[in-house]
Amino acid sequence: LTKPLLAALRGETPARIPVWLMRQAGRYLPEYRALRASSGGFLDLCYTPDLAAEITLQPVRRYGMDAAILFSDILVVPDALGCEVTFVEGLGPRLAPIGNAAAVGRLAPAGLHERLAPVYETVRRVAASLPPQTALIGFAGAPWTVAAYMVEGEGSKEFVQARRFARAERGAFARLIDLLTEATADYLLAQIHAGAEVVQLFDSWAGVLPEPERERWCLEPARRIVARVRAARPEVPVIVFPRGVGAAYARFAALLGAQGIGLDTTVCLEWARRELAGVCLQGNLDPVALLGPRDALLAEVRRIGGAMAGRPFVFNLGHGVLPETDPEAVAAVVEEVRALPVEAMRR
Amino acid sequence: LTKPLLAALRGETPARIPVWLMRQAGRYLPEYRALRASSGGFLDLCYTPDLAAEITLQPVRRYGMDAAILFSDILVVPDALGCEVTFVEGLGPRLAPIGNAAAVGRLAPAGLHERLAPVYETVRRVAASLPPQTALIGFAGAPWTVAAYMVEGEGSKEFVQARRFARAERGAFARLIDLLTEATADYLLAQIHAGAEVVQLFDSWAGVLPEPERERWCLEPARRIVARVRAARPEVPVIVFPRGVGAAYARFAALLGAQGIGLDTTVCLEWARRELAGVCLQGNLDPVALLGPRDALLAEVRRIGGAMAGRPFVFNLGHGVLPETDPEAVAAVVEEVRALPVEAMRR
Repeated sequence: LTKPLLAALRGETPARIPVWLMRQAGRYLPEYRALRASSGGFLDLCYTPDLAAEITLQPVRRYGMDAAILFSDILVVPDALGCEVTFVEGLGPRLAPIGNAAAVGRLAPAGLHERLAPVYETVRRVAASLPPQTALIGFAGAPWTVAAYMVEGEGSKEFVQARRFARAERGAFARLIDLLTEATADYLLAQIHAGAEVVQLFDSWAGVLPEPERERWCLEPARRIVARVRAARPEVPVIVFPRGVGAAYARFAALLGAQGIGLDTTVCLEWARRELAGVCLQGNLDPVALLGPRDALLAEVRRIGGAMAGRPFVFNLGHGVLPETDPEAVAAVVEEVRALPVEAMRR
Repeated sequence: LTKPLLAALRGETPARIPVWLMRQAGRYLPEYRALRASSGGFLDLCYTPDLAAEITLQPVRRYGMDAAILFSDILVVPDALGCEVTFVEGLGPRLAPIGNAAAVGRLAPAGLHERLAPVYETVRRVAASLPPQTALIGFAGAPWTVAAYMVEGEGSKEFVQARRFARAERGAFARLIDLLTEATADYLLAQIHAGAEVVQLFDSWAGVLPEPERERWCLEPARRIVARVRAARPEVPVIVFPRGVGAAYARFAALLGAQGIGLDTTVCLEWARRELAGVCLQGNLDPVALLGPRDALLAEVRRIGGAMAGRPFVFNLGHGVLPETDPEAVAAVVEEVRALPVEAMRR
């Protein structure tokens, strides 16, 4: 029997609506917090296969999710390129900001796989211990989102410095994006080699760019990454999550060549159903709904399930699980998804 | 001769493409900083007609903008409802957060016009001293955006607390939105009575809500406000700026009854031209483009002008002018807009 996630992404009718949640392994889980308390920094977790594999499996064990997603971070790629990353408790990531063309020139793609070997080992371990119906998802940050952190040096509301750099130093920024595009494809292919059955590209900050920049820094690099992965491993579906691109979701769905498109919380599902044909959709429950009354939460699950009925769909959030989420709310979501009727899915 | 802004909003062909910029009066202008340094807090400025009128007029004098927009803040409305607002230098607004139904019940709409009388006086003074081709825009925050600040107590990246409250205390939140809807319509009508020729409703945080909440907390209240303003003063065009609503811009354009729709930086103009018919569009230059190379900035101005050629359009940014903007960049934008050819505009 094909795993439900793989069936949905291939446009076949799965035995059940597949469900997993972005950041399903994380701070809202007591078993994660326990493990985190006894370990080093956040990146150490990502680079320690024993711990990262255990964290990856925690939500699968607890909820019977249809996918395990590798526990890691999108910033391991810049870290592996020689741009040191640290995570400051309560503040998020800090990077030595890329401030000029010379800093782009100093990045060292040659060391990528060596530095990321522990991540591949994590993938191998998870792959070896998954339940038979659970698919393993590898992932990476998309070039624009990763570059935005590298230039800004930290998280940001609007990534103004990164957008400014992309305009002021267009040639250097293009080299950075090109370098990240190749490194990201290499990285995803290595995860697939280690056992990932699906890969997802997170373009979490695609939504801060205007149309021309979005085409050049988001759509085009993602298209190249999907093409490289599909050329080398045509059996592995690719999901792209271009968060916040609004009506441009139609261009991404039509032009990326991806098998799955992640919908953020704001997308109108009737619109998506009409305009994003020929691709499996994934999303878009608001993580805040998990903090609210249970009956309204379950009604939201049914509304989304109903809107996507009869077309390829993967139930998920439209953004990551919030740290203050009650683990019981996640259980209730999964149970409600399991009760959704499976209709024949037509692309 | 009809003022260019009014002509465009009425769907007539103006003598030139009208241009103004969100936050055109503000920190990037040395004359603003000089005046600000010698005055009290930020809200004091808003409540001092002499100063607020002078600030409103500064960019009109410097650039010959086609509109003066009242210098004020969207948070004067909660302030006038009895929810005290302070602005902390470098940190932004702070409000006593609305935490429960009782706090909503304590809001006092009866004192609105008394507290906001200085704002109306500012409008009166500006109206009396505007150049003949310059239109005066009044404005207010939309109920969702204002309520989000009132619940959160400050600015936020995602307004999670406000979204959570809206779900957990749905009845109380609905009362808050209803109260703000009526107060906002009253406030805009009073600005019109004082001399505003156009009013704009800023829903700056519409983009954090999923579809059902967006319909209930953004679209529906804005529709009611537009209807009240239009019923009382049918000659006054209303612009609504639902920032970040993506493909739902089509619903807002079709259902609000507004004469103008503000487009954020992310909207694809070809899509907007196709899907948002029958309404004047306004936007959507990226404020970050003003920080970058001059030739690329002017090319952006021409790209936007070209995409909107022959349909009702008001040139503007897709978000506010950034404080670090060189005033000369604004001058260059205005000059380039003045050079755009005016074609007959068909709705």
